[in-house]
Amino acid sequence: MPPAHPFDFDAWNPDLGDDKLHEECGVFGVNGVSDAANFVALGLHALQHRGQEAGGIVSYDPESGFNSARRFGYVRDNFTKQSLMETLPGALAIGHVRYSTAGSKGATQIRDVQPFFGEFSMGGAAIAHNGNITNADALRRELIERGSIFQSSSDSECIIHLMARSLQRKVPERMMDALRRVEGAFSIVAMTRTKLIGVRDPLGVRPLVIGKIGDEGWVLSSETCALDIIGAEYLRDVEPGEMVVIEDGELTSLHPFMPAAPRFCIFEHVYFSRPDSIIGGRSVYETRRQIGVELAREAPVDADLVCPVPDSGTPAAIGYAHESGIPYGMGIIRNQYMGRTFIEPTEQIRNMGVRLKLNVNRALIEGKRVILVDDSVVRGTTSRKIKEMILDAGAAEVHFRIASPPTSWPCFYGVDTPQREKLLAATMSEDEMREHLAIDSLKFISLDGLYRAVGEAQGRDVKCPQYCDACFSGDYPVAPSDMIEKGFELKAAE
Amino acid sequence: MPPAHPFDFDAWNPDLGDDKLHEECGVFGVNGVSDAANFVALGLHALQHRGQEAGGIVSYDPESGFNSARRFGYVRDNFTKQSLMETLPGALAIGHVRYSTAGSKGATQIRDVQPFFGEFSMGGAAIAHNGNITNADALRRELIERGSIFQSSSDSECIIHLMARSLQRKVPERMMDALRRVEGAFSIVAMTRTKLIGVRDPLGVRPLVIGKIGDEGWVLSSETCALDIIGAEYLRDVEPGEMVVIEDGELTSLHPFMPAAPRFCIFEHVYFSRPDSIIGGRSVYETRRQIGVELAREAPVDADLVCPVPDSGTPAAIGYAHESGIPYGMGIIRNQYMGRTFIEPTEQIRNMGVRLKLNVNRALIEGKRVILVDDSVVRGTTSRKIKEMILDAGAAEVHFRIASPPTSWPCFYGVDTPQREKLLAATMSEDEMREHLAIDSLKFISLDGLYRAVGEAQGRDVKCPQYCDACFSGDYPVAPSDMIEKGFELKAAE
Amino acid sequence: MPPAHPFDFDAWNPDLGDDKLHEECGVFGVNGVSDAANFVALGLHALQHRGQEAGGIVSYDPESGFNSARRFGYVRDNFTKQSLMETLPGALAIGHVRYSTAGSKGATQIRDVQPFFGEFSMGGAAIAHNGNITNADALRRELIERGSIFQSSSDSECIIHLMARSLQRKVPERMMDALRRVEGAFSIVAMTRTKLIGVRDPLGVRPLVIGKIGDEGWVLSSETCALDIIGAEYLRDVEPGEMVVIEDGELTSLHPFMPAAPRFCIFEHVYFSRPDSIIGGRSVYETRRQIGVELAREAPVDADLVCPVPDSGTPAAIGYAHESGIPYGMGIIRNQYMGRTFIEPTEQIRNMGVRLKLNVNRALIEGKRVILVDDSVVRGTTSRKIKEMILDAGAAEVHFRIASPPTSWPCFYGVDTPQREKLLAATMSEDEMREHLAIDSLKFISLDGLYRAVGEAQGRDVKCPQYCDACFSGDYPVAPSDMIEKGFELKAAE
Amino acid sequence: MPPAHPFDFDAWNPDLGDDKLHEECGVFGVNGVSDAANFVALGLHALQHRGQEAGGIVSYDPESGFNSARRFGYVRDNFTKQSLMETLPGALAIGHVRYSTAGSKGATQIRDVQPFFGEFSMGGAAIAHNGNITNADALRRELIERGSIFQSSSDSECIIHLMARSLQRKVPERMMDALRRVEGAFSIVAMTRTKLIGVRDPLGVRPLVIGKIGDEGWVLSSETCALDIIGAEYLRDVEPGEMVVIEDGELTSLHPFMPAAPRFCIFEHVYFSRPDSIIGGRSVYETRRQIGVELAREAPVDADLVCPVPDSGTPAAIGYAHESGIPYGMGIIRNQYMGRTFIEPTEQIRNMGVRLKLNVNRALIEGKRVILVDDSVVRGTTSRKIKEMILDAGAAEVHFRIASPPTSWPCFYGVDTPQREKLLAATMSEDEMREHLAIDSLKFISLDGLYRAVGEAQGRDVKCPQYCDACFSGDYPVAPSDMIEKGFELKAAE
Repeated sequence: MPPAHPFDFDAWNPDLGDDKLHEECGVFGVNGVSDAANFVALGLHALQHRGQEAGGIVSYDPESGFNSARRFGYVRDNFTKQSLMETLPGALAIGHVRYSTAGSKGATQIRDVQPFFGEFSMGGAAIAHNGNITNADALRRELIERGSIFQSSSDSECIIHLMARSLQRKVPERMMDALRRVEGAFSIVAMTRTKLIGVRDPLGVRPLVIGKIGDEGWVLSSETCALDIIGAEYLRDVEPGEMVVIEDGELTSLHPFMPAAPRFCIFEHVYFSRPDSIIGGRSVYETRRQIGVELAREAPVDADLVCPVPDSGTPAAIGYAHESGIPYGMGIIRNQYMGRTFIEPTEQIRNMGVRLKLNVNRALIEGKRVILVDDSVVRGTTSRKIKEMILDAGAAEVHFRIASPPTSWPCFYGVDTPQREKLLAATMSEDEMREHLAIDSLKFISLDGLYRAVGEAQGRDVKCPQYCDACFSGDYPVAPSDMIEKGFELKAAE
Repeated sequence: MPPAHPFDFDAWNPDLGDDKLHEECGVFGVNGVSDAANFVALGLHALQHRGQEAGGIVSYDPESGFNSARRFGYVRDNFTKQSLMETLPGALAIGHVRYSTAGSKGATQIRDVQPFFGEFSMGGAAIAHNGNITNADALRRELIERGSIFQSSSDSECIIHLMARSLQRKVPERMMDALRRVEGAFSIVAMTRTKLIGVRDPLGVRPLVIGKIGDEGWVLSSETCALDIIGAEYLRDVEPGEMVVIEDGELTSLHPFMPAAPRFCIFEHVYFSRPDSIIGGRSVYETRRQIGVELAREAPVDADLVCPVPDSGTPAAIGYAHESGIPYGMGIIRNQYMGRTFIEPTEQIRNMGVRLKLNVNRALIEGKRVILVDDSVVRGTTSRKIKEMILDAGAAEVHFRIASPPTSWPCFYGVDTPQREKLLAATMSEDEMREHLAIDSLKFISLDGLYRAVGEAQGRDVKCPQYCDACFSGDYPVAPSDMIEKGFELKAAE
Repeated sequence: MPPAHPFDFDAWNPDLGDDKLHEECGVFGVNGVSDAANFVALGLHALQHRGQEAGGIVSYDPESGFNSARRFGYVRDNFTKQSLMETLPGALAIGHVRYSTAGSKGATQIRDVQPFFGEFSMGGAAIAHNGNITNADALRRELIERGSIFQSSSDSECIIHLMARSLQRKVPERMMDALRRVEGAFSIVAMTRTKLIGVRDPLGVRPLVIGKIGDEGWVLSSETCALDIIGAEYLRDVEPGEMVVIEDGELTSLHPFMPAAPRFCIFEHVYFSRPDSIIGGRSVYETRRQIGVELAREAPVDADLVCPVPDSGTPAAIGYAHESGIPYGMGIIRNQYMGRTFIEPTEQIRNMGVRLKLNVNRALIEGKRVILVDDSVVRGTTSRKIKEMILDAGAAEVHFRIASPPTSWPCFYGVDTPQREKLLAATMSEDEMREHLAIDSLKFISLDGLYRAVGEAQGRDVKCPQYCDACFSGDYPVAPSDMIEKGFELKAAE
Repeated sequence: MPPAHPFDFDAWNPDLGDDKLHEECGVFGVNGVSDAANFVALGLHALQHRGQEAGGIVSYDPESGFNSARRFGYVRDNFTKQSLMETLPGALAIGHVRYSTAGSKGATQIRDVQPFFGEFSMGGAAIAHNGNITNADALRRELIERGSIFQSSSDSECIIHLMARSLQRKVPERMMDALRRVEGAFSIVAMTRTKLIGVRDPLGVRPLVIGKIGDEGWVLSSETCALDIIGAEYLRDVEPGEMVVIEDGELTSLHPFMPAAPRFCIFEHVYFSRPDSIIGGRSVYETRRQIGVELAREAPVDADLVCPVPDSGTPAAIGYAHESGIPYGMGIIRNQYMGRTFIEPTEQIRNMGVRLKLNVNRALIEGKRVILVDDSVVRGTTSRKIKEMILDAGAAEVHFRIASPPTSWPCFYGVDTPQREKLLAATMSEDEMREHLAIDSLKFISLDGLYRAVGEAQGRDVKCPQYCDACFSGDYPVAPSDMIEKGFELKAAE
């Protein structure tokens, strides 16, 4: 049973036809640069696509100690203000952006916003966590029985309590102690008074990269695009299972976990990460373009126009158009002034859904056979509405090409997915989906095609897959023990 | 001398490297549909690109009379709320979005936000104005001497005072009286208790279109994209010099002005309008794509990649790539979470400029000869920064292709342009600009090429130009009399 | 017919059992002191009892011209902020506090908040008005027909429009022109770029005093208590019918109106003014104490305790106790943290009424025969509730002594009074009221007793009353012409 | 060493000449009445004088579980809103108001606002604490070493952590366990899903009373005035050392502590409590009036006027005037629209101090020999300013009579006192103080006189004082162990 928590209800955020999977977090940290919190703010702004609901920054300054600010809303609306940033002095800071778990009334309170801070007997530490702990419920129960008091509904808080109870003296050792008890996916950026710490789980499910800035400065970031904004140089990824401790301008690398074969999240390439980021040494944009190329080879169709579903379908559409020789065009136009949250919306706004965000470029579409390239199909609700808009505008035929395999399993490693029965691909075959969407054709890229696009020329290694692709394959690299306890059924062995 | 006005100072909006010309307004009106204000709100949301600073809606309901709400900020943050929209009942409503005149401290107060409302002896009327009155200073002086009291610093307020003093009994006649005294550009949407009124100046400089919704409903809008969002059907444009009066489900067309040869603003095609709009019967997207085609013909260059400067350069880049056969790619990535206004920004934010908004897709650019396609060059400040980012990312060559001729004259018809001496093209030749920007090549489309792209196969008719192109040519179709009085020098006759 | 006006609806202010007449405004102005707006803010804070809904300040500074800020809420919550006050530079400033007309939905918008500002052909002027214009409807109709556009629902705006249309060149002359057309009560503080102007109507119904501050500074204020807070010295009252123009450190006195016998509002002494103010040379506190003395003589009763209804009944209770020899005690305690406005209150809050504000000192009251001294009875609703609270607490007897005669006529000179039929004394005799309130005795001071307390040893001069006492006597010194047109019936001649 | 804590800085609250000791909290709880939170809100409004900075309410409802809202600002500005109160359903609720510790930068965050909530292994509980724990630092150190993570800087949080670690199963038993480890003063209102719990420390330093409402409802409150506002009946005080558990309409009384002689805070009678409250069976008003009587006997002086320093000096002034026969009058008038907090105040506002709040009734004071009756002298800063104002207004003589003995020792039991060296009476004799204040005479009531006023006819029992009077006597009934560790020196034995 999840613990009941008091909440402060602030605003209701309708689900406006947003039919995507969402990364739940982005993390960023800087050590060795004065006014580090300003750099963290810029980094978080560049990582905003990983979480739009709230953000937080903790900094440390010898004079004023640890300081923290956590706010709902975009980084740019909060952490750009002189008056707020002045309260976050010092050369060491970390930050976090967070995605809202859509639909759960009153789900998020400011106390759920990271970084979390704990005062230990040897001094304080703050941590920011990207990922999800799959045995958090069990850990929480155990900790509460031993007298820990939780302040948030966040799984990540377990880590702080485990650290508080460690018998080790130093924070890095306490953190190792804590993380050895934790199952699931985690890319963590943490700090003490002097140290900036980065860790990835043994499988390396979520990304975390290391950058250098100036002579003395170090940066940790979920993605490389956030290094670019502050002019930092990309050094390398934190390796799966590695802990890096950065202090006095030096980086120390530790490997506190049992070694394992890496399983990086393949969906980071498909959708989550920004196209200008480089992950695991590969350009996200190029991978997506290559998915479009593979799709054109696997699923060609005779048509007049290749049109991306903005904005995430664009690189794959460019690849598809290039490979197929069919002209590329912007058949759907996105409203630049759209956001996610509406406070107290009218009935009409609730019903508008995707039309608030997208409009068809009627003059281009009319009379054409259109190939729409989208990154994924989750519930299928948006796909239906887009199809209707395209047909209303006079398209002759509508063909969907999807830059990922059918999403038929939920993610338990830090992505907000609907329950399995809400996933269209969990209940329908490709053909049934085509019929359900009432379109002329529908093709998903194959799992092997996707692996080829990420550079695995031989496709997926069935015995030992190179990536975590559980959302497509149902092959979970870490058993989701809390969910199993709640009744989730794993895929039957084949 | 413009009158001094008291102001309420609210926030300081730095100019964050935004180096574009800006349309100052969008207008929208609905008659004959219950909860008309809701439709106006959606229409204004679709027109938000024409003005982001503030918006207003006036509605009329027989029971509660005229109601009004005016707010700073995006439409979506204000006019989507149940509690606000409930205060705007009725089947007749008009609205306005407004662009901020950047940089002038305390320029805009809520009293400057339209629609304006006046209580006349025969009843009230509200008007929303897109455009600019070029003899507003003279009119204002005269009106003040006769006892009118101005409440705003907006030129548009003259129209209301001229209407109040008209000896005609009915509002449409009063409006004709008033507009005959007005010089400049205007597309107006106005309302009385029963009538929705639309007017365009004799030259038709700014757009205004007519739509139908349902059996009885009529819509007036700056652009067709706002008809699409509410599911209205595009009927036709309000003609230059036409006044349409819509009452009891019927439209009456009047022509109160001396006929003149139309001079629609060609920059609406180049930049202001949304690509999914149709203006004067032409698709904006297709025109922009065709500009790219013309550019590729006029100014070819050997290169590896055609890359748009997001987002406005995209259609022209697609056209250029298609015509030239050089691959199209997203070499610059836009941050989706960027807005225009920062409250009390830190020094660092002020200095970031375009980096807050754009990042280079390093993996794609590196080592390539890149053609950057942008819509225009105004001050040149952004072009310089983009060039630097592209070179920092390792591009081998940088070529700019600009989808408009050099912008060398200010606009006085409703566009916010810098003073002439701030326009790069007003002080430098194309070659000097290339040198100033330190790039490998720079080419603007020719004025004739631009005219061909908007469908004038013979190019520009020098004796009687088909469009207003004063910003490129210095050929002002209406003498800017206030500005001349203040010392502005027209182009010398050639 | 009152004009329909668009409105912005902000908050609903329930009438929480507030059963008093309310002064509608306070005015204040300073000339010849740097940062004059700061002094105005302090003065308005001291005058806050004259109007709590909103306040405004206009200042003039040669460099930045006229500046203005108008805000809803208390002076102390707005005009104490550094960032706001910095926008109001200069050595000349005026201000206004305004009372909300309770109960009329959406009645007040920021545009109704004074000072009003007008740009005339010879320069700008701002005015702040305390009082009420009794022919405002007729003036407004006439002005609208001649092309004036009203921006507020305030009667005071007529003055600005009349000034704008005056053929005089200078602002003081324009103001005289305008005020000669105006009927009713007015104490006005106005300003141009160099002049501070004060005027009182010929009867001098509302107060206005002159103070000196430092060597060069002059002050105009509704009451002397606002001179005290800024350390200014009380010089004299502006005389009825006088206009003072203060410029370059010199005061010029003009008398633009036909002379008339003064009729100062006697209720200012009874309730409106602060007890520490001196009006017409008399201490308000001492007058109120003396009313208590007169009451004790006119209406003695055998009792154990004299108890004021806080806070306005206190001085009269002290006088009553002193004269009668019955002990004085605080039988009713006021909650210090009570305000007037509740945003979106719960049902329970709406029903609490006076209990939110007052509580009975049970230990003191129990078993006692209590004399409650209150300043007035308006609707009688509060008196009933207080009586119930006193009896619930165990009082043996309850006697009301009221420090004013029965209020049986509405005020049309700047006081917010209920319609006549809502005034308890308009429909009941003293005895019926006693019965209605179900108390042991009820006595109002006589009109002559009241005149004696304000120093008229012979009581009221029936032929030529020394004060305006229309609310008690129905004897209106200026015919309320707008109201008569709407059907208000004057008292029949006796 | 107190732990460093991250903070969110919101506003700066200048110390505007407020020269009083302040109670730090008020607590209130209701069980057995539907919409209990509404009653708690009203109770907290009545207790607002005990804490103005922030307030919080927790309620329990079987359907939605525990709900909580904590807000900065007055109860009336937050907990009267429909939308907020709807989030606090249920028939069981507790609440807390909190005083700000003036001057400590960023001292209070929303996380410091009570009630605190803890999720224990057997279910949740919320507690609200009035008082202060004198061994909190030691407890906090021990708890942190054992892995507890503190979320606030509040001493009260120790209680929750001690409860979380108790091996008892039920919340009341856990609370007993916890409180037996705690030293200092506490009056606690707590709740589980079904129980309302009240406890007072063995000495009963802070007040806590029991009330009944309706047939089934029970109330706990810091003072009886908060019972009055909701129409509850005062039953009795919770006894020193008693724990009451109220469940299913029944009250159970427990006595978990070692018995001790009670030491109720005598300053509650002098200043903290509201005059309409009854404490320990005595009327606060009557006690204060009696203090005035005693003062008149102990320290008579020939004068013309007895004048209270508003508002707390009023009852004693009434008593002094009655006993001495010298007339009572309101020589100082309080501005009703004054609050405590200014956001970003101008320099001038910071310097105004007491003049923003008080003004002299010049007409009454002039030429008189004035006795000013005040409740206490803390730093003496306000007394000086008041004296100046009185002399400026022309008083002939100024005599201070203080309704408490010299305050020369800090309180460690839940009152915000300055450091000892800031207390005027800690560094000066009565005569030195008179000279320092430059007044004609200064007299404090004697400690025995004060005891007589609270009903101890024999005065203070030196061997076993009937009250806690440490702030006057330096006789601390509980050793302030944290403070002693930090170097505080107890009074030397005499």
